[in-house]
Amino acid sequence: MDYTLLLNNFSKHITLTKKEQEFTLSLFDYKKLHSKDTLLEQGDICKQSAFVLNGCLRGFTIDSNGFEHVLSFAPKDWWIGDMYSLISKKPGNLNIETMMDSEVALLSKKNQDILYDRVPKFERFFRIIIEKSLVAFQQRLNDNLSLTAQDRYLKFCKTYPQLINEIPQKQIAAYIGVTPEFLSKLRAKQAKAK
Amino acid sequence: MDYTLLLNNFSKHITLTKKEQEFTLSLFDYKKLHSKDTLLEQGDICKQSAFVLNGCLRGFTIDSNGFEHVLSFAPKDWWIGDMYSLISKKPGNLNIETMMDSEVALLSKKNQDILYDRVPKFERFFRIIIEKSLVAFQQRLNDNLSLTAQDRYLKFCKTYPQLINEIPQKQIAAYIGVTPEFLSKLRAKQAKAK
Repeated sequence: MDYTLLLNNFSKHITLTKKEQEFTLSLFDYKKLHSKDTLLEQGDICKQSAFVLNGCLRGFTIDSNGFEHVLSFAPKDWWIGDMYSLISKKPGNLNIETMMDSEVALLSKKNQDILYDRVPKFERFFRIIIEKSLVAFQQRLNDNLSLTAQDRYLKFCKTYPQLINEIPQKQIAAYIGVTPEFLSKLRAKQAKAK
Repeated sequence: MDYTLLLNNFSKHITLTKKEQEFTLSLFDYKKLHSKDTLLEQGDICKQSAFVLNGCLRGFTIDSNGFEHVLSFAPKDWWIGDMYSLISKKPGNLNIETMMDSEVALLSKKNQDILYDRVPKFERFFRIIIEKSLVAFQQRLNDNLSLTAQDRYLKFCKTYPQLINEIPQKQIAAYIGVTPEFLSKLRAKQAKAK
């Protein structure tokens, strides 16, 4: 396993000594996953955050009519977890699943708390990571309230350029909140406009 | 001005010495606002976070058709700011306005950074505040994707019980994403069901 990507992720916001790096990495668990493996199921208590070393995961909910709604994708170099369940220690409604063969570095809530105590600069690191995540969700909520489906698709392309041709269309449809058929029409319209 | 509420807000997550309390409060600016005063206008760069000591503020965007969309309400004891603009130092699209006469304690980004350096336990404080805010936005996004308008109204009542009869119906409508007329029908239906 290669944790270089994870160390680079840390170094975007904090500087760790060699010793701190070693201690920090010792708190992570490496896991290789196959496509469509489940990392978290709704109704479970989320006990860990995942950092994506390779591949791509998605976080989604299933409504009472059985429709899936994708809350976020997590390609390489992204973090994913059910924050509600993580901090409340209650069962959440998020499902987390791989979309292709993936490798993740898992940090349990317990180890994260150890990390905060032993290397307090991680308070800053996660404060910044969560700020960015908050901004992404605020913008997405606003987009859902105020943009047309066409514009939401364009935003998706801007946010996740690496995913456009990598993941099934029906997942993109579940993210922007339209049917796969409607997404097809949007894409055709956009191709024509070019 | 009375900062007791603010000190109590801190003490939910961190413990400050008397000296730290004094230093921290010295970084805040007290402001008395009238109803409908503007604290932040879209297109401006947000340079401060506001803690609500009294009254209620709302954060909203205006779409290209002129419709307002309420992203969040901030009653007493809540924080509000445009996180995107605050951290990117770029113009944001959020408007922040008072909904009634209000008092706020303002913390500029500059002073917040001083606070992080001088009283590092505020990294933890704001990490936790932002985690909670992230959970609220994630849940709201999911609600908007998967719940009916009736259920979104019920969620609003649960999230902001103190606001139901305090703020204009059209603001609640702009929050749950329906017209004021449709909200009237929802409320009538709910009253009937009781």
